[in-house]
Amino acid sequence: MADKKMVEAIASMEEDFAQWYTDVVKKAELIDYTSVKGCMVIKPAGYAIWELIQQQLDARFKEAGVQNVYLPMFIPESLLQKEKDHVEGFAPEVAWVTHGGLQPLQERLCVRPTSETLFCDFYKNDIHSYRDLPKVYNQWCSVVRWEKETRPFLRSREFLWQEGHTAHATAQEAQERTIQMLNVYADFCEQVLAIPVIKGQKTDKEKFAGAVATYTVEALMHDGKALQSGTSHNFGDGFARAFEIQYADRDNTLKYVHQTSWGMSTRLIGAIIMVHGDNEGLVLPPKVASVQVCIVPIQQKKEGVLEKAYELRDRLKGSFRVKVDDTDKTPGFKFAEAEMRGYPIRMEIGPKDMEAGKCVICRRDTGEKLEVALDQLEEKVGELLETIQKEMLERARAHRDAHTYEARNFDEFQKIFAEKTGFVKAMWCGDQACEDLIKEKMSVTSRCMPFAQEHLSDTCVCCGKPAKKMVYWGKAY
Amino acid sequence: MADKKMVEAIASMEEDFAQWYTDVVKKAELIDYTSVKGCMVIKPAGYAIWELIQQQLDARFKEAGVQNVYLPMFIPESLLQKEKDHVEGFAPEVAWVTHGGLQPLQERLCVRPTSETLFCDFYKNDIHSYRDLPKVYNQWCSVVRWEKETRPFLRSREFLWQEGHTAHATAQEAQERTIQMLNVYADFCEQVLAIPVIKGQKTDKEKFAGAVATYTVEALMHDGKALQSGTSHNFGDGFARAFEIQYADRDNTLKYVHQTSWGMSTRLIGAIIMVHGDNEGLVLPPKVASVQVCIVPIQQKKEGVLEKAYELRDRLKGSFRVKVDDTDKTPGFKFAEAEMRGYPIRMEIGPKDMEAGKCVICRRDTGEKLEVALDQLEEKVGELLETIQKEMLERARAHRDAHTYEARNFDEFQKIFAEKTGFVKAMWCGDQACEDLIKEKMSVTSRCMPFAQEHLSDTCVCCGKPAKKMVYWGKAY
Repeated sequence: MADKKMVEAIASMEEDFAQWYTDVVKKAELIDYTSVKGCMVIKPAGYAIWELIQQQLDARFKEAGVQNVYLPMFIPESLLQKEKDHVEGFAPEVAWVTHGGLQPLQERLCVRPTSETLFCDFYKNDIHSYRDLPKVYNQWCSVVRWEKETRPFLRSREFLWQEGHTAHATAQEAQERTIQMLNVYADFCEQVLAIPVIKGQKTDKEKFAGAVATYTVEALMHDGKALQSGTSHNFGDGFARAFEIQYADRDNTLKYVHQTSWGMSTRLIGAIIMVHGDNEGLVLPPKVASVQVCIVPIQQKKEGVLEKAYELRDRLKGSFRVKVDDTDKTPGFKFAEAEMRGYPIRMEIGPKDMEAGKCVICRRDTGEKLEVALDQLEEKVGELLETIQKEMLERARAHRDAHTYEARNFDEFQKIFAEKTGFVKAMWCGDQACEDLIKEKMSVTSRCMPFAQEHLSDTCVCCGKPAKKMVYWGKAY
Repeated sequence: MADKKMVEAIASMEEDFAQWYTDVVKKAELIDYTSVKGCMVIKPAGYAIWELIQQQLDARFKEAGVQNVYLPMFIPESLLQKEKDHVEGFAPEVAWVTHGGLQPLQERLCVRPTSETLFCDFYKNDIHSYRDLPKVYNQWCSVVRWEKETRPFLRSREFLWQEGHTAHATAQEAQERTIQMLNVYADFCEQVLAIPVIKGQKTDKEKFAGAVATYTVEALMHDGKALQSGTSHNFGDGFARAFEIQYADRDNTLKYVHQTSWGMSTRLIGAIIMVHGDNEGLVLPPKVASVQVCIVPIQQKKEGVLEKAYELRDRLKGSFRVKVDDTDKTPGFKFAEAEMRGYPIRMEIGPKDMEAGKCVICRRDTGEKLEVALDQLEEKVGELLETIQKEMLERARAHRDAHTYEARNFDEFQKIFAEKTGFVKAMWCGDQACEDLIKEKMSVTSRCMPFAQEHLSDTCVCCGKPAKKMVYWGKAY
């Protein structure tokens, strides 16, 4: 049968998670590969997820007083080089434009890998007085990083993202904005993507090139690996000093601004796949499903069935995103396709249902089937979508908690990572040498120093010296 | 007075239209220049217009069955070269990436100037059968063209746009889609931007590199120059043959697809400025105004005034885009600033108004002032915004019609363009030599062969041979 064939084409996630992931992105028609190495086409089903992410994240930004702008995609080499740590972090992985039209350029331009330097160059001219502050700007754009190994959504040479860049009069205000935006990200992940996250600070080793402090939201994928899902950086006045961004304060003295930046990207689509997906394919949280209800007519050639399907769609479409699969495929194939694409609800309507004044509704996330009276349809669909959204978050949280471990000494630490993949909480002395050793021995990295600190022991899990912080460790994408 | 100073800083549009334009884009804070030559920053007030354009145009696309996707920003040189006319048209003005990270690339990549070649490369792999057709895809992105002379919004090295790319089973379907999207553009310009347009076909000389036929919507600016505001191209099967995009039809024979593309860009913001602006600054049609109502409190330090202003804002904000200017500037300065930024309605509320249970409303487009009873506020504001939107279109149409002339012979033709700037309708034999001569003698180009043809005379305005088409001629941006 056609439906079987479609499902058999996917690897089992338990047997080969990487292959399963690749199969899902292809079979759910999220992306396609291109002739441009390391770059992908985001197909309609994939881009629709991104549009729903954009809309809902942008609405949260606007509530937080963020204004959107657009800056050039090119950065002159001299501008990229102004902040020392920053250029060291990014120069090895940028694409260089050397010719415009038929002429060589006097100065080569890189395609932005991130836009701190451009925002600084802009702010330098735009900020004069305390009245011009704060600046709380964001742009939606694509960026380029010349990665060697690429994977759809997770790591590609070009990806879509938003990057917020702010400038403030005081260090305190910059710090507050850094945390405010991290909280927006955490709330967005949990409430919209149904992905629970750990909020915390990156160690110095893992922080952003040029930042004083980097904060992160870290999620755990189904295979137990971690995914950094959004970051928020406090730059202090380091960039301001490098770019001479000063303002005249109320007391008429010149002061440096304090800056932040924060970003989330199409990598979130990878997170959705790897947190919620199963062996039938993609499972979309209702809030980012471009089709929330897929109506499959049964015996659609019988009189009145298709008409009934369209009538139900028209009833639902004011409140939900809904489509009728009226193609000439078999119902079995349509079921498998709706499952592969992750539509939260499948609705079946056929002659018998019509006679009984009901339809059959099937949840993608649990497979559960319900009969619903047609006169209660809107209400039941609305309730069910809310339930699905809520339970997907709860299941993801339970999975994460079940894959979060504690280590009190090096032996325990090694034993856990030898046997399991997940988050391991362990105490750390604050010394980068221990981070390096842990990475060397176990191929894991510090994911973050969580805001919710616990005291697991007095000593560093690695060196035994007095511990300063509890850290989440894990294998990361 | 501060308000005077602000207004005096703008050139008069009658005296120096080009300088007036530059002053408006700067003073209304739409853009800023950057260290990247030929590229601009689109500031919050400018980007907000683009967001409103995107939202409303994208909604029309979705109604027309368009799906959004995203393709890479890079095009390998060999791919750009596959369609002969196309590469000749674009190769002289593209930016070339030659290095990725620290390594030279094996094949250089251009930054997309437009994405026909990428879509073809994608469609070649994605289209197999008649069941895969039509493809009606669009992307919102930025493109790069290495222009020598640049002007904000009108011509810059990087600009934002949407580009639709479709593939169809038949020539007829492709032609229908080409015209359908042109109609979407014309309707959007008139109903949303309040800009009337002439719909027509480009001559072969002016058509897009690689197209069989290019259609255009042409608008007339306040200074009488024309602006090409959107184009829609029918490619026939030319690209399909160059890229070998074939599908198996119902009869199991392989056939080439027929393709179209269509685009509109941030250039539309230039059109809004130049059609509606005046000597006080920008005038925004309500549908693309991010602030539709600007409330200016009078004697705002008096008890209850600011509170009343916020109360009115809160009453209006469910239905309109509204803000209170509660800065410590003088009311006169606030008025001038609101005018410069083009907010359609300014509302004044002070102690006397509050006592009388009314407020004063001022239309940006006409300067007209009205008193409105506070208990009728929502209704009156809604009506007024509709009236403004409608009357702005009517005035723009009247201006265009008053600057549209007819020429029946070469002397008339030359005389008109010696004295006036506007559209000139004249008959044409269809020979490119006449177009070339007209351009040489009068520095005007054929804008389009309008769908609404008129028979002005039997002979070509240039050579006197039998005429085939009536053409709109003009100086263009």
